[in-house]
Amino acid sequence: MARLGIDLGGTNIVVGLVADDCSIKDRISCKTALPRSAESIAEDMGRLCQEIIKRNGLQNKDIEAVGAGIPGTVNKKTGIVEYANNLGFENVPLAAMLKKYIDIPLFMDNDANAAAWGEYKAGGYKEDSFVLITLGTGIGGGVILDGKLLHGINYAGGELGHTTINFKGRPCNCGRTGCFEVYGSASALIEQTRDAMAFDRVSDHLYEKSVLWTLCGGNIDNIEAKSVFDAVSQGDELANILLDEYTTYLSEGIANIINIFQPAVFCIGGGVSKAGKTLLDPLKKKTAKLIYSRNSAVNTEITLARFDNDAGIIGAALLNELP
Amino acid sequence: MARLGIDLGGTNIVVGLVADDCSIKDRISCKTALPRSAESIAEDMGRLCQEIIKRNGLQNKDIEAVGAGIPGTVNKKTGIVEYANNLGFENVPLAAMLKKYIDIPLFMDNDANAAAWGEYKAGGYKEDSFVLITLGTGIGGGVILDGKLLHGINYAGGELGHTTINFKGRPCNCGRTGCFEVYGSASALIEQTRDAMAFDRVSDHLYEKSVLWTLCGGNIDNIEAKSVFDAVSQGDELANILLDEYTTYLSEGIANIINIFQPAVFCIGGGVSKAGKTLLDPLKKKTAKLIYSRNSAVNTEITLARFDNDAGIIGAALLNELP
Repeated sequence: MARLGIDLGGTNIVVGLVADDCSIKDRISCKTALPRSAESIAEDMGRLCQEIIKRNGLQNKDIEAVGAGIPGTVNKKTGIVEYANNLGFENVPLAAMLKKYIDIPLFMDNDANAAAWGEYKAGGYKEDSFVLITLGTGIGGGVILDGKLLHGINYAGGELGHTTINFKGRPCNCGRTGCFEVYGSASALIEQTRDAMAFDRVSDHLYEKSVLWTLCGGNIDNIEAKSVFDAVSQGDELANILLDEYTTYLSEGIANIINIFQPAVFCIGGGVSKAGKTLLDPLKKKTAKLIYSRNSAVNTEITLARFDNDAGIIGAALLNELP
Repeated sequence: MARLGIDLGGTNIVVGLVADDCSIKDRISCKTALPRSAESIAEDMGRLCQEIIKRNGLQNKDIEAVGAGIPGTVNKKTGIVEYANNLGFENVPLAAMLKKYIDIPLFMDNDANAAAWGEYKAGGYKEDSFVLITLGTGIGGGVILDGKLLHGINYAGGELGHTTINFKGRPCNCGRTGCFEVYGSASALIEQTRDAMAFDRVSDHLYEKSVLWTLCGGNIDNIEAKSVFDAVSQGDELANILLDEYTTYLSEGIANIINIFQPAVFCIGGGVSKAGKTLLDPLKKKTAKLIYSRNSAVNTEITLARFDNDAGIIGAALLNELP
C-alpha cells in the first residue's frame, strides 16, 4: 500500500508517493516561500498531498500513512514542532494543523532522523546500529540503535552537528563555538575555499592560478562545494590542500561519533557525498587513525548514502514503521 | 541470592560480596602489582573469590553469579579482553583463565560500563536513558539506553573520554589531540593547577599567596584534585579561576554528549564528584547555555554519582542482569 512522504525544507516543500518497495512513484512540490505562517505552510502541505493522490487515481483509503520530516525538534507525542529555526517555528501544533487538510494517519519526525530512517530502510540495511550524517548547509544527524531512532527524552537527540570539536574555534549559529558543522558542513567547505582564494589574491600566492578561479568565472561568490571536487579531479594544488583540510576536520567529527557508538555502519549523505571516492578514501584513511577501536577485529563501515535527498522523503513516508 | 563483583584496577583487585539489595556485605582485595602475567592476575582474582565465599560461610552454590569490570575492551561473546592498555593485555582469554579458578557463571564488561550499570541499578533509576562519566585518571563512560548498555559492534562503544573537544589542542595518550579527558579528567585538573602555580612562581604573580601553596606544603607535586576544591572553600582567588576554567572544559564535553543522547539522567562519578555542589552548580549553569535543547520543556538532569567507587563492584556483580 502506498504512503506519502513530505520533506518540509527551507526552500521547497516536496511530497513523494512512496511504494512498498521504497521507490518514489511520483513527486510534487511548491516553494516554502518563507517567511510564512505555519497555518499557510500546513495548508500547502495538505494541498500537495491531495493533488498527488488525485493525479495518481488514488483515494485517501489507498494511502497507508503520511509522514513529514521537519527541520527542527518535533515532539512526537504531542505533534508539536517545538523549535525549527529556519522555519521560524516555535511551539507550532503542526500535526493538529495538518489534520484539517489530511484525513490519513500522520507521523512526523526531525528531517535528519527521517533521512537516516529512509537510507536505512531503502538501503536494506539489517545491521542493528546505523548512523547517518548529512553534509549540507549544516550537519544533520540520525542514529538508529536496535532498529529504532534515537530521540532522547525531549526529541532533540542526535544533533551530531552541534558537538564541538574545537571549543576555542569558530562561532556556530547555535550559540556554541567550534561545532562539527562549522568545520564539516558543505557551507564550511565553501567558506574555507572562498577564504583561501581571497587570501590568495591579496597575497599574490602561487595558487593564484588555481583552476578554482576558472571554475567560478573569476567570482568567488560562484564557488560551490562541487567546485573543489571538480578542481581536485583536474589535479589542482589549492583544491587538494583544501580537500585535505576539510577531510581532516570531517574525520575528527566522525571519529568522535564512532568512539561513542561504534556503529556497524556510518553513512555520509548530503550534497558533498556525491564526490564519491575523492571524499571517501581520504576520510576512511584519516578516521582509521583516530578511532579508539583501531586494534579491533571488527570496525565501523564508513560508506556514502545511496538515496541522497530522496532518503528524507522515503524515510518520512516510512515513519509509521518506526517501532 | 548473593553475587560477587570484581573490580580489576591498575592498582588493586577488589572483590565485593553483593546482596540482592545492592549493598556490599564484605570486600577483599590485593595489589594488582603490575607488570604481571594475565594468568597470575586471574589466579589472584579466583583466590579472592574463593576466600570471600569461605569467610562468609557460603558455598559456590550460594553465589548466583560472578562479574568483573575490566579497564579495557571486553568481547562479551568470546570472554577475551581485546585490549587493556593499563594492564598490558592484548587478546587475553580472561574468561577461560578465570573459569579454572571459579566454578560459578561468569560475566565481564568494561569497568566504566560496570560502574554505569551499578550506579543505575543501585541508584534505583527507572529512566530509559542514563549516561555516567567517571572523572579520574582519565574519563570513562557508560551509556544505558532502553535499560541496556551501549556496547557497539566491537564492545568498544561509550568511550566518551576519547572524543575531541579541541582537535588543535593538547595530545592524548590514545593518539588523538584534544580529547575530552585531556581537559576534564581529575588528572587534567591537577595538571592545570600545577601549571598555573608553577607559572605563578616564575612570573611573581599576585596569586603567589594562593592557599594552594599552603595546602601542598610548598611542593606542587602534592597537589591533588581535592586541593583545588579545598582552596575554593577558603575563597582562594587562583583556585576559583582554576575551577572556572575546569568547569568550562567539562561543560563543553558534557554538552556534546547531551546533544547526542539527550538522556534523562547525566551522572558524574569518580573522585572529583565528591566536591559536590562546588562542582555541580557551575557545571549545570554552563552546560545549560550549551545544550541544543535549551528551549525544551524537558531537559537532562545532571547529577552526581552516589555510589562512588562501589558502583563498579555492584555493577560487576549485577552484570548477569543485563538484558
